[in-house]
Formats: sequence, structure tokens, C-alpha cells
Amino acid sequence: MRLGTCYYPEHWPQDMWADDARRMVEAGLSRVRIGEFAWSRIEPEPARFEWEWLDQAIEVLHAAGLGIILGTPTATPPKWLCDKMPDMFAVDADGKVRGFGSRRHYCFSHLGYREEAARITRALAGRYGEHPAIIMWQTDNEYGCHDTVHSFSDSARDAFRLWLADRYGTVEALNEAWGNVFWSMEYRSFEEIDLPNLTVTEANPSHWLAFRRFSSDQVVSFDKAQADILRELSPGRDVMHNAMGFYPDFDHHDLGKQLDVVMWDSYPLGFLEMYAFSEADRHDYVRQGHPDIAAFHHDLYRGCGKNGRWGVIEQQPGPVNWARNNPAPLPGMVRLWTLEAMAHGAELVSYFRWRQAPFAQEQMHAGLLRPDGEAAPGLKEAQQVAPEVERLGDIGAPVKDAALVFSYPSEWVTATQPQGEGLSALWAAFYTYTALRKQGLNVDIVAPSASLDGYAMAVLPCAPIVSGELAERLKAFRGQIIIGPRSGSKTDDLTIPPELAPGKLQWVFDGKVTRSESLRAGIEHQGEGWAGRRWLDHLETDADAELVAGDGTVACWKQGNVRYCATWPEGDVIDVIVARAAEDAGLETVKMPEGLRIRKSGEFAFVFNYRNEARAVPDALCGEPMIGERILPAAGLAVFARG
Amino acid sequence: MRLGTCYYPEHWPQDMWADDARRMVEAGLSRVRIGEFAWSRIEPEPARFEWEWLDQAIEVLHAAGLGIILGTPTATPPKWLCDKMPDMFAVDADGKVRGFGSRRHYCFSHLGYREEAARITRALAGRYGEHPAIIMWQTDNEYGCHDTVHSFSDSARDAFRLWLADRYGTVEALNEAWGNVFWSMEYRSFEEIDLPNLTVTEANPSHWLAFRRFSSDQVVSFDKAQADILRELSPGRDVMHNAMGFYPDFDHHDLGKQLDVVMWDSYPLGFLEMYAFSEADRHDYVRQGHPDIAAFHHDLYRGCGKNGRWGVIEQQPGPVNWARNNPAPLPGMVRLWTLEAMAHGAELVSYFRWRQAPFAQEQMHAGLLRPDGEAAPGLKEAQQVAPEVERLGDIGAPVKDAALVFSYPSEWVTATQPQGEGLSALWAAFYTYTALRKQGLNVDIVAPSASLDGYAMAVLPCAPIVSGELAERLKAFRGQIIIGPRSGSKTDDLTIPPELAPGKLQWVFDGKVTRSESLRAGIEHQGEGWAGRRWLDHLETDADAELVAGDGTVACWKQGNVRYCATWPEGDVIDVIVARAAEDAGLETVKMPEGLRIRKSGEFAFVFNYRNEARAVPDALCGEPMIGERILPAAGLAVFARG
Amino acid sequence: MRLGTCYYPEHWPQDMWADDARRMVEAGLSRVRIGEFAWSRIEPEPARFEWEWLDQAIEVLHAAGLGIILGTPTATPPKWLCDKMPDMFAVDADGKVRGFGSRRHYCFSHLGYREEAARITRALAGRYGEHPAIIMWQTDNEYGCHDTVHSFSDSARDAFRLWLADRYGTVEALNEAWGNVFWSMEYRSFEEIDLPNLTVTEANPSHWLAFRRFSSDQVVSFDKAQADILRELSPGRDVMHNAMGFYPDFDHHDLGKQLDVVMWDSYPLGFLEMYAFSEADRHDYVRQGHPDIAAFHHDLYRGCGKNGRWGVIEQQPGPVNWARNNPAPLPGMVRLWTLEAMAHGAELVSYFRWRQAPFAQEQMHAGLLRPDGEAAPGLKEAQQVAPEVERLGDIGAPVKDAALVFSYPSEWVTATQPQGEGLSALWAAFYTYTALRKQGLNVDIVAPSASLDGYAMAVLPCAPIVSGELAERLKAFRGQIIIGPRSGSKTDDLTIPPELAPGKLQWVFDGKVTRSESLRAGIEHQGEGWAGRRWLDHLETDADAELVAGDGTVACWKQGNVRYCATWPEGDVIDVIVARAAEDAGLETVKMPEGLRIRKSGEFAFVFNYRNEARAVPDALCGEPMIGERILPAAGLAVFARG
Repeated sequence: MRLGTCYYPEHWPQDMWADDARRMVEAGLSRVRIGEFAWSRIEPEPARFEWEWLDQAIEVLHAAGLGIILGTPTATPPKWLCDKMPDMFAVDADGKVRGFGSRRHYCFSHLGYREEAARITRALAGRYGEHPAIIMWQTDNEYGCHDTVHSFSDSARDAFRLWLADRYGTVEALNEAWGNVFWSMEYRSFEEIDLPNLTVTEANPSHWLAFRRFSSDQVVSFDKAQADILRELSPGRDVMHNAMGFYPDFDHHDLGKQLDVVMWDSYPLGFLEMYAFSEADRHDYVRQGHPDIAAFHHDLYRGCGKNGRWGVIEQQPGPVNWARNNPAPLPGMVRLWTLEAMAHGAELVSYFRWRQAPFAQEQMHAGLLRPDGEAAPGLKEAQQVAPEVERLGDIGAPVKDAALVFSYPSEWVTATQPQGEGLSALWAAFYTYTALRKQGLNVDIVAPSASLDGYAMAVLPCAPIVSGELAERLKAFRGQIIIGPRSGSKTDDLTIPPELAPGKLQWVFDGKVTRSESLRAGIEHQGEGWAGRRWLDHLETDADAELVAGDGTVACWKQGNVRYCATWPEGDVIDVIVARAAEDAGLETVKMPEGLRIRKSGEFAFVFNYRNEARAVPDALCGEPMIGERILPAAGLAVFARG
Repeated sequence: MRLGTCYYPEHWPQDMWADDARRMVEAGLSRVRIGEFAWSRIEPEPARFEWEWLDQAIEVLHAAGLGIILGTPTATPPKWLCDKMPDMFAVDADGKVRGFGSRRHYCFSHLGYREEAARITRALAGRYGEHPAIIMWQTDNEYGCHDTVHSFSDSARDAFRLWLADRYGTVEALNEAWGNVFWSMEYRSFEEIDLPNLTVTEANPSHWLAFRRFSSDQVVSFDKAQADILRELSPGRDVMHNAMGFYPDFDHHDLGKQLDVVMWDSYPLGFLEMYAFSEADRHDYVRQGHPDIAAFHHDLYRGCGKNGRWGVIEQQPGPVNWARNNPAPLPGMVRLWTLEAMAHGAELVSYFRWRQAPFAQEQMHAGLLRPDGEAAPGLKEAQQVAPEVERLGDIGAPVKDAALVFSYPSEWVTATQPQGEGLSALWAAFYTYTALRKQGLNVDIVAPSASLDGYAMAVLPCAPIVSGELAERLKAFRGQIIIGPRSGSKTDDLTIPPELAPGKLQWVFDGKVTRSESLRAGIEHQGEGWAGRRWLDHLETDADAELVAGDGTVACWKQGNVRYCATWPEGDVIDVIVARAAEDAGLETVKMPEGLRIRKSGEFAFVFNYRNEARAVPDALCGEPMIGERILPAAGLAVFARG
Repeated sequence: MRLGTCYYPEHWPQDMWADDARRMVEAGLSRVRIGEFAWSRIEPEPARFEWEWLDQAIEVLHAAGLGIILGTPTATPPKWLCDKMPDMFAVDADGKVRGFGSRRHYCFSHLGYREEAARITRALAGRYGEHPAIIMWQTDNEYGCHDTVHSFSDSARDAFRLWLADRYGTVEALNEAWGNVFWSMEYRSFEEIDLPNLTVTEANPSHWLAFRRFSSDQVVSFDKAQADILRELSPGRDVMHNAMGFYPDFDHHDLGKQLDVVMWDSYPLGFLEMYAFSEADRHDYVRQGHPDIAAFHHDLYRGCGKNGRWGVIEQQPGPVNWARNNPAPLPGMVRLWTLEAMAHGAELVSYFRWRQAPFAQEQMHAGLLRPDGEAAPGLKEAQQVAPEVERLGDIGAPVKDAALVFSYPSEWVTATQPQGEGLSALWAAFYTYTALRKQGLNVDIVAPSASLDGYAMAVLPCAPIVSGELAERLKAFRGQIIIGPRSGSKTDDLTIPPELAPGKLQWVFDGKVTRSESLRAGIEHQGEGWAGRRWLDHLETDADAELVAGDGTVACWKQGNVRYCATWPEGDVIDVIVARAAEDAGLETVKMPEGLRIRKSGEFAFVFNYRNEARAVPDALCGEPMIGERILPAAGLAVFARG
């Protein structure tokens, strides 16, 4: 694994660059990402390019021995470009234009902007495509950040109509697929169809799902235009994009197919603060992040690329600026996050950013250096971890325990139609992932189309849309299967399948969901050591009722190698189900103390302590570690050689 | 009482219809509502009507012996119609157009749409008006649903100006009535007057009240146009509209005057989740609904029609789709709700809907049948209750105990000027209703103009606007009177009357409110077994201070047969006041155990158990019930013959 | 000190005026403010003036012996004027026009409206400028009320561009100052710069700060145009404006420079309910207001005027109408508030309003009279306090203990970039003020440019922007200094200074903030009797760690006469720091029991009891008071002569 950093030469006097490069290398970094927001410096006026500074920056970094990841600057078109095409902005669901003044101010469907994006990509790739320093390209930056996938512009509307015509062929087919007879929503032509926003009450969920699919496709095709140019003009270099955390608005499996590497931007403390964690977790892990935040995304994005190549292109090195509250990581966390990425198979961990900028939106975002150029705490940990990374070398292939099947359209179904407060397929996946990890298991988060070979368990936490192809493979799967609630409950167009839920999964599990309930917080169906909460599927089935609450409610059914979790897969109930399935699968589980996590590869077992206090390594891991001690300090870790 | 269901033949293959009709009849249903959202199937292109399918559906249902309630489809104008008149949409208070894609996408003030609505009504009534199967018409569907009474369109503004000119005669009179001298808000002509939205801070409350009155009148006149056509073309049939729960945005007393029957749509579980119930109630009654939700609306809408005819045209049969959380009713609740409607005098209970639709917005809304056509739990309870309804037959006239006076403009006053957080005349009525019912009393919720003859008590929970005519009748009333806070505090134009509150009620109660306070949650003036909360009227009066808090605050004054409740009529304090007034009125009260309710008609006393556990019938009800047992199971009920 | 009231002759029949004036004088009032909302009565049609009624009103009030404060009516332009210039309205940050129908419906940058405002001011001042009854003018009314300082109109945008050109000279300088290279936000001309709203994510904080500065300047120049006319046409009269509570959107120090007197509108109960007080404070002080609300603003606005002249032009006399909940003041509070204003040096306390209006937006706002003309409780307290004010006479100059430095741009920095939830420089000032007052100290809240002579302490609770000039003066200051977190952390353009925080304050305190954290509620670094909460500055310094938490976190550093508070200056931690600094300063502190406050002037010591129960005066105050007793009842007070 390599270490790197994100650098903005355009922010600093040219005479600082060489020293910066030298210090990077001295710190053990060998990769540097540059350029992704620099359009106004590359092309300060229409068609007037200023390459000299960038030529020079590349030379200086290259000379120091750094491999360069160069970003296309399309996330930040300059003002002059926007003024030429004032309709290029995205429009929000309320109809407000999302204008210039920050970033990502473009609509993915605007044809004029697509041309401009291709033009600047071609210019950049034309100049540097074969430069020996350039080893990788990043397309754009964080597609979808600031809620930018869904645009309600006229450009989007026009493109949506074409997309619908392509998908459905005839408007009669669309009316039929969506059930538009309901409430007289039938259309006579594709030209009559508007975007699903600004309706009196919610639009048809089929309409929304189609719009979500379309919007995702627009991101993917926008990206593909750049990837194609880069491959043409920069042969042999990898093409990468940087994904975000807890961000499902476009299909990363689709995007990943056209990339060489999928990387992501890991900010565990900001995510803990901004996403749906409990107050207790936000308190206990305030300076560490919940122990599954980073690992979940490592295991998710590893499954998104063409061939499992992935990395962390932006790693939080200190406090950030963008969460409601912005604490500093506990001493040790930057090192811990780095080695945890390694344990999960990253090819790169790159810290964001080299030096804290004293100006503009992110001036309160820490870097490896302070704004005055002195070392910030993050740099010291990077320096500490670099030789450890070196020493570990090749860690071997990951151990395969459980495959957790997640699909983006599943999340779009629950986002469109939560039916109960806060219900989300993405978060069901996260909670189930936690349950698996609390048993000490390795998890691969895989697309529905991925092979299940070699796994002892396959888990679908909440998969409303399931293809016949997946159902067939599950039927053939000999390991333990857990099917979560709402799985198979919807067709591709977000209608209820004629056979009812779990739809085609009835090929795998003989049962039928006849009624579903969502339950407010505080309503619990109490069993022994677990409770059914938030959701209840009622089934007609001959399966065995494995978990039955005191009031007779069934939370888990079992039939052969398949369990059906009929309540929301979160907390104690999914802990129990996972533990039973793992036992049935013959997996060696390790009950993890709170806040500890383990990750096993061919060569090593890594143990990480996310608590703010010392914890002993579980006895299941024998002997003395090669890195660390058996008593892990707060934010500590240990690496054991595997027998 | 009849049982029925809501059916959408246009959603299902024609070859299903006959079997559906047969199964309805077998289940004990004799009424079916159809057609109210079918415009795009009736008139798929401008002026091209397709009647055949509807002819056929009516024949099939009729042949099975079902009486048909036919809806005008004006709540769902098709896309082609909207595209012809793009300014027909309502506009929200933020100025956003509320477009096509769901339902109720029209502005009540748009003259072009009014013509279209009349045209389709005339077409429908012309074809089926004298068909023997048609026994009743429903106009439109749920006026006001999705907050659609108030539109801020240009059409509304123009109509509002005419309405104001009509009401006030001269603009000087309007300026005077509204006190527009305040903040230089005076107008020189009606043409200068805009709608009260989008002002810098709140507009004049008189302006808002006028706009609320106007908007209500627009609903009523929109409806009247349809009712007139139906009466002309469909002689002898009843005209009905379906009202909603906790919905006060138009004056249902005004609407009721032009209808033959007022029906309503009863979704107790959804209402419990979405309206202002406490967390404790939401927990304890999660699968039953608060015990007064259904009854309150039964007793309210019975008082809205011309002659007391009313029914439930949509009865929740299982989980719905539209609340934040959507649990299933406890087994027994569908039967309970049905017999409770009967106990309150309904002429129809019709379950919504026959078969759950597998598509579109309400695909997660249960029906009597599942989407696959199998019986859902609701059907079984309908089958169980049908013979019970049959057996009870004519239950006799309701016993008259208390009249609770409620007017829609009262609610508009508190909605416009709450003065304290969450204060609402409608909810004051609800809380007071609960207090009355906890004493085992029958309640009629009546318009201010309704006769008070035959009642032992008259209660005005919160009636800011009181006419001299009502004050005269109260003065003559010999039973016990309870006047709640803020009553008589406003003129018809929402100004303070010269004599101060309680205004003309000073003819009935000799006292004057000199100061009012609203109190945040947690501020309590504690008495013995009660506390004054949320509101305090301070009075100058010679009346007796009946309830005095430890700190000297007076919560209730008494003068002859009149009590003035000076604090918010909610919880223990109104329980105490109601109990004392009932005793003074010589009424036989029955202290109801928590969650139990009683309803007395000429022939029977019904007892309903809303708790999720067994409860004994109070001893005050002697002997053995003709239906049920003395120990009521959860969601159980008993019917006693009255001596 | 004088007493007065706010009167609206245009609201009442002319034949009431003389009696009203007589009753005012009888109650001990000698000042009356009129006219500030009367434009539609003064000029009912364009250029048609009706002066007669106002002539008459002035005569009647004058004849009764009242001195008149006349307001320009520019906060309420009439409808006809708005219809002439429909683009005169402000626009909110969402792009919505803020139209006619309430008040303050104008954009400060609209040149046409500026002309109209000058025209009506000139007309009014021309007619009454030399009238002997007129002793003072009020410009407009509550600039900024209802969030009206920031307008996002085209007028504002155009004016902003000119303002930027004036400030920065060249667009290159602006790009450099704002760091627009970040995210390619560079401009090629001032004409390319838009307002900072409606961006995809937050705009550059430098952009926002500039817009806040600009908006404040627009208010000041709008006001100056009126002040200049009034000084020209009404020589010898004072010019005043009425500020609000907790309102920082324009720079009151700038405004104050061009006024003779700064007054403010004191509504402690409304402020308690609407601003960021704890639930406990809202409960305990529900009818009194937090004990520092009124005093804080007295001490703030005293420091805003040219020469310390200030007053309360609107004093809450009973319940108001505009808070979420509107309780009545505890008996005694109107008197207490009046004498407290006196103790802090007010020249006027004027009750708002004389008679409660029975109509329009403020009909539920109490006056000294009820709507029916009878005395409301407030009048009785005014009558009680008038002779006490008389008796006290000249109270002497205030004792100088501590200077608390506050600047409006500091608050704009934290408002633009809170970095942690709810962090605000204004509230840091308030919390620190409370800590000082709990030690029984007098506090002057001063501008950064104010002299620090004569103070024993100087406190900067949170001053992100600090000039070299202030740093120099602090360096020379011999008293105790407390520097709060984030002080000196920003340049004038909201970037990080090259030397890092505390910037130029490093001349005073030798230390450097190397990292800052914001902490969510519940995260506490516990010391002995205090805890660090919400914020932590980490320092490199040789100063002594004075307050060290159990986990080693340093909350306060000490170096000579300077303390650096590294955590948020709120609650126990700032209590401890202030107490230590006061002791080091040799100040005589008086530990105040909860809810008691003291204020010392040359002649007297005032003690106020804000609790809802009796409290003894602290022993430190010897002897018997000249007003009140040593045991203060709820809402009671005592005045001691000072030796």
C-alpha cells in the first residue's frame, strides 16, 4: 500500500513547491493528487490556457519522486463559463437555480456543459496524458456532493423524456408499468411527462424511481465521456473517481464498471456527526468515529470497482470544517485509520490535505501541515505509520466469510417509499454489517450480480428489488442465507410483484409476506435478549419460527439454510440472527468487545480499538502481536501473524 | 346501517369484476363507491369519451345487487386538461405552483377549471343520472386534502378582491374593519389588495381571516355547482361529499347545508401518528388509535349535514401508506370501528378499499383483499361484523346529554393567531370531547346555530367568535353551561370587541377578561388534582372562584348555571370541570376506565375497549350483554340492551 | 430619568386625545413618541398631504406638557408607493420577494425608495422641525426587524458591486483577499460578482462577510440621509433610533456615531422565549426574563452612542403578541425594569404602548391601558415607579469595573462560520457578561475602539477580528485581561492570519493556537468545579496552565495580567476565570445569589431580585436601603446609598 496526499500548488507561492515535495517524500508519501479544482487557473479566460504553472508543479513533484494523480477540474467551472450558459446550473426540487459561488454548479444533463467538460478534459489529457509523472487520473470530484445528482432543470426534463422513451418504448407501456391509471395520471406522449417534483402530494413512486435511475445514469454517462478521453489520450494510466461516505444517489456499481480504481473520501468524525448515528454513539465515538464507518465503505467500494482495486484518496487528518461540530481525532486515529484501510486491502491512503488553506470555505479543515507550514498532528502519525506499512508489505488476500448483498436501487426504493420513519436499505446494510463484524467476521459488500463463490454466508439485509438471476444463484448457494425484510417486495418499476414479497426469493424461501407494518420508536416486540422494532413482515410459511416474541410475533423464520428476518435488521435482533447463521455456517466467530474490530487477511489478523480507553485483545487471537501489544490503548491496534 | 367498499374497476381486468362483486356481496357488503379518480379513463382525450367500460362496471356491480355511489372525478383532472390551462394549478404560500403528477392539482378559483368540472359532471350525470344502480353521488374527493383549500394564485387573488368588495362594500369599510391604519396598511381600492402571503412579517390577522373565509366559500361554491347539476340530472339520488379527519380549512357546516349526507374518511391509526397526540398516546394506542378519534368525527359530521345523515365512506381496514409510521390495526379493531360508527348513528360504513393496488402512490395501503386477491385480515372482520350489524337492526335515536358547540371560524381565529404554541380551537374541542366521554356521556358536536333543546349541558370549549343570537340562546338555556377560554374574544373580523372578551357572552356570564397569558409547556398552576396550563384568562367578575390554584390563580369561575374555564380545556382541569357540571346537570355519569368508551342510543348501550389488554365493563352497566362479554378483550366490545 | 410612552393618535378618535394626554401626565410620564407608522395618514395619496390631524395631535400632547419624539414613517411605506416601484421590496435568501402587507417592506439599496424616504422625511421635518413640542426625532423604526438587513435583490447586487469596487480597488485584490483561487471562484471583473445566496453549498465565507459588511453600511447610510435632513431642518433636536434585543445584523457602533442618542426596545419575556436560553431558564424566569437580558442591552447600547446617551424607548408593560408563548410579567417587573434602566443610566424609559390596539397584528400586545381604556397592570406600576424615579434624581456616574469588548463584525464571523453548533460571538459576550455580573461587577460593553481607561478588567469573550490598534492598547493596559477563544483568529476578510490565532493578540499574550475543536453537547472536559465545553483551542505557549481538566485539557492559560480562555466562555468555567481575574484586579466582588443582580453608580447601589420568590440582599451591602427592604420579595428591588 502507498501513502499520499492532496496538494493544491495553485494555492501557494511557487517557491514553496519544491520544499513541500521534499517534505512529502520525507514523510513517507509517494503519491500526490493535484488539479481537480484548478480550472480558473488553467483557463482564466475562454480558450486562453495557462499551462506553465501546472507544467512546473508537475515537474517539481515528479522530480521529488512523487507519482501524480491528476484531476479533471469539471466540478468547478469558472464564472465566465457559467455566464456564457446561464442555464447550465442545476435546479433544486423547489425550483431554485443552484448558482455559482461554491462548487458542483452544473446540471449533469446540460449538453453545453457536457461539451465544455469534454473540452477541458481533452485539453488537460492532451497536454499531460503521456507525461511520465502522471500515473492516474481522477474524473471530476465527488459526484453528487451537496446533493447534486438530482437536478430539476429543463435540461434534465428533456433528457428524462428521452431516457423514458428509450426504457419503455411506448407511453402506453410506461403508463402500464407505473400504474398511471391510479389518480388519472396517464400520459398520452412522453412529451407530457414532467419531473416528479412540485406535485401537490407525492408523485407516483414509480415516477420517482425512474427519475432516480435516470439521474444515476446521467452521472455515469457524464463520467464515461471523460474516461473515454483519458483512455484515448493517456494510455496505460488508471482512471479513478473519488466516492463519498453514506452516499447512495447514484449507482456506484455502474460507475465502477468503467473505472480502473474506485477510491473514496474517508471522514469518520464528520460522518458520525452528520449521519443517522445515535446520540450515544456520537458521544462515545466523538473523536474516533463509529468503528464500522471506515470499514463499511472500504468493503463497499472494494466491491464497486472492476476488479477490486480501491483506495482512500482523501483521509481525514484532523478536524474538518463541514460537520455541525468538528472535534479532533484522538491521538492515534490517523494511524489506526491508515492501517485499517491497509487491512481491508487499499492500494493507497492519501491524506486530505497537505497544508491547511488559510482562506475560503475549507479554511477550518485541518491538513498534514498547519496554515503556517508547521507539522500538524496528522503529519506525525503519517510519519509513524509509513514504516509500519512498509514492514507489513503484502498482506495477502482477504479471508472470505460473509457476502453482504447491497444494491443502489434498493436504497432508492426505500428513499422513495420509506413507509416507516427513517427506514433505509443502505442503513439496514450498515447495521447488518455491524452485526457481522461484532462476530469477528470478514465481510464483502457485493453487488447483486457478484459471485457468491467461496463465502460461508450470503446476507441480503433489505433488497426490495431482486432479479431472477440472483434468486437462482441464491437457490444454488450452499452456505447460510439471511434474507432481510422488504426483500423482493418490489418490481423494477417499484410496484408490488404479483406473487407478493419476497418475490422471486420465494424460489429460495418458501413463504409469502401477507402484511407489513412499520413501527414508531418505542414499540417493541420483546423476545429473549432481542426485540423486534421498526418493521414487521407477517408471513404465510411452513418455515420454523426461530425467534418468537413474548406476544407471539415472529422476528425470524428458518427453513433449511435460509433465515428470513421479519423485523428491521438492527441491534440485538440481527446480532442474534447473524450469530446463529454464522454458527450454522461453521464459521469461527470471535465475539468482539465493544468498540473492537478484527480484520483477517491471508497473512495477518489486525485488531483495532475504537474505544477511548484501553482494551485487551480477545483470547481467540493467540500469542504476541508483531505490531502492538495484547492490551490495546485507546485508538490502538495490533497485528498478528496468522498461522 | 349498511356496509360497503370502495372499488376501482379501472384498476383491474374486466374479467375480475363479476367475481369481485360476488365476493363483496358474500361478505355482507351492499354498497360500492366507484369512479372518483377515473377521468383519464372516461375522457382519455379532450371530448373523446369512453363510456363502455364504466357502463359495463356499473352493470356488473348492479347485477350482483350492490348499490352504487358514483364519484365525480374532478379531484384528478388529466394531464391534457392541465396542459390546456397551465394557470389552473393552485399556488402555495411560498409562490410555488402545485403541478400535475398526483391529485388535487387545481385552484378552486380558476374559472376555466370550474367550467371543466361542470362539463365532466354534466357528462357523467347525463349518462348515469337515472340509472337504477346509482343511489348516491360523491362530489369530487376530500376537498382540501394535501392542504389545497388555500391557493395563492392570480385566480385566487382576483376572486378574493371581488369577494372582499362584496363583503365590505367600500374599501374604507374594509380599512376600518381590519384596522389598516396600523402600520399604514390602508388601501385605496379593492384592486390594491393582495393575498396575505409573502409579507415581511405576518399580515394583518383580519386579512388572513378574510382570506380563510373566502377560501372556504370557494370550496362551497365549487361543490354547489356540481350538486346543482347532479340534482338536475339525477333526481332522487343523494349527494354526498367525503370529509377528512382533523381537517378544519373549510366550513363543513356550510358545505353540509347543500349535501344530503355528509360522510367522512376514518383512518384512526394514521391520524394518531400524524396529528397532535402525545408520545404516550401514540405508544399506548399505536394499533387502535386514540379512543376518541373516530367518535369525535362521527359526532362532528353528524352535526354538519342537513338532517343528521352521515356515514363512513372510507374505513381503514389495515395499515395505511401515508403516515410517518404505518402499523396494522389490532385484531378486532376493524369490527370495533364498524360497530362504533353504528352506535353513533352512521348509515354506512364502507371500507377503503376492496383490493390493495399493487402500483402507484397507495400501493402500501391495505384493502379488504391483498394485491393477490386473497382475503386480508380486514375482510375477515367485515364478514364477522356484517351479521352483528344485521342483528342489531335499528338502534334507536341517540341519547342527548351534552351539546359541544364548535365553529370553523373559531379554529381559523386560533390558527391565524395562536398567541401560544399549538393552541387551537379544534383541539380544545377534541380535549373537551374526551373529558365528556370519560364521564360516559353522549356528545353532539353542533354548529353555533344549532338548537340546544333537549341537552343537559352546553359546552363552548373555545369559541372566539360568538354571535348575539347564540348568546341569546345560551342565556335562555336552562342546563349547565361551560364557556372555555378565549370565547367571545374576537369580532367577525378578528379584532377585539369593545366590551372585551367574552364579548356577547357577557349576556350569559357577568365577567370580563382583562388580560390573557399563554404559557409554555412545563408552566403549571397547580390545584388539587388539576393544574392550569397553556393559557390563563384573568377576569374581573363577581362570579365564584370554583377552582383556585395554590398560587391563587383561578382556573374556573362559577355563576349560576355557567362555568367559565379560564385555562386551556385539556387534561385533568377540564375533567374536573366537566364532572362538576355533569353532576349539577343531573346527568348519570359513568367514570370510564382508561381506554373504555360508552355510547347510548334508544335501544342499546355500546361499550368499546380501546386498550391493548382486557378490561371489565363498568358496573353501572348491569346484566349480561347481548353481544360480547362483561370482560372485554383487547379491541373488544359489548352491546347491552337498555331498559 | 424621564418616563414616557408610545402613542398612536391615528388609531383613536380625535376626541380621546386630550384625555389620553392628561392621563399620561397624571401617571408621571413626560415624553411621548408618535408618528413612526403613520405614512398612509400623512400622505394618503401621492403628494397629497394631510397634516391637520397631526398638527392637532401635536398641539394636544404639547398642551398637556408632554415632550414629543417624532418618528419618520419610513418603515411603513403605503401601498400606492409600493405599486409605483414594485422592485423596491427586499428579496430573501431564497429569492422570494418580501411584499406589502405588514412592515419594513423595502430594500435598503433601492435608490428610488431612498429618494422617497428622503422626501417624506423632508416634508415632516419641514413642517415640524422647529415646533417647540418636538424634542427628538426617531429615524424609521427598528432597522433590521423581521430579518430585513440582508436583501438579495437586484438593487442590492448592484450596490454590492460598487461597494466591493470601492473596498478592494481591483478585482485581483478581491480575488487575493478572499482566496478565490479555491474552487476556481476567481472573478474577472466586479460585474461578475453575485450575492452569496443560492449557491450549491456555502459560498466563500469572505464573500459572506463582505456582504454582511456591505449590508450594515447600507443601513447606516440609509439612516444618515434622514439624520442629515433632520439636523438641517430641525436644529437643536436630538436624532435617535430604536435598536432591538439580541440583534447584531448591522453595526450599531457605526450607526451610533451619527445619532445623538441610541435607544432600544426592551421585551425581556419575549426575548427569553425566542432566543437561545435554556429550558431551565425559560421555566424559572418565565414571567421575569433572564436577569441579564435588559442589563446586557443597557450596557451595550450605552456604548454605541456618541457620548453614552441612551434610553429605553419601548418597554414591555405586559404580555406581548409575538413570541411563541406570551406570559404576563410578574407583578413588580415593570417597576423593576424601569428602575434597572435608571440604575444603568438611561435618560428615558418609555412604555410601549399607551393603549392596547384592538385591531391588526399587535392586538394581543398589552399597553398601559386595556383596549377599553381602563388601566392595565402596567400603568399601575408606572404610577408607582414615577415618584421613585423622581426621588432618586441624579444617580451619579456609573462605577467602572470591567470593560467587555464586543464588535459586530466578530458576530458576523461566527454567524458566517460557526464551526460548532450554535457558536456565536454575541452569545459568548452575553455569557461572559453574566459571569461578570454574578460577581457583582459593573460592566461596560464597549467597541474595540473605545478607551479602556479607568477599568480594572478588559475582557474579549470572542473577538475573531482584532486590530493592531486594539492589540497595542491591550498591551499597554495594566488591569486584568481575559481573552476568549477564537479571538484574533481571523483577518478583516475572514481568512486565517499568517501568524495564526490569536493573531495580533500575540503582542499581548505569547502563545499560538495550533488547533481548534468544536464539541457537541454532552462532551465535557471536567475540571474541579468547571468543565470545558463546546470549543477547545489547543495552544503552543509558555504561559501557565491555570485550569487543567482531569484528562489534561487546558481550559485557561495565564501569563502576567492576561488569561486565555481556551474553551467556550459559558457557565462554570467562565465564572471561575472571571472570579480569579477580578480577584487579581483587586476588585471587590459580591457573589450574587441566583437571580440577584447589583448595579453601582456614584450615589447608589441597586439590587434587583429576578427570582419568583423572596431573597435576602447580600451582606456585602450594609445598612438599610432607602428604597425597599433587605428581604427582597419576588420581582423586588432595593436601593442603597453608597458611602
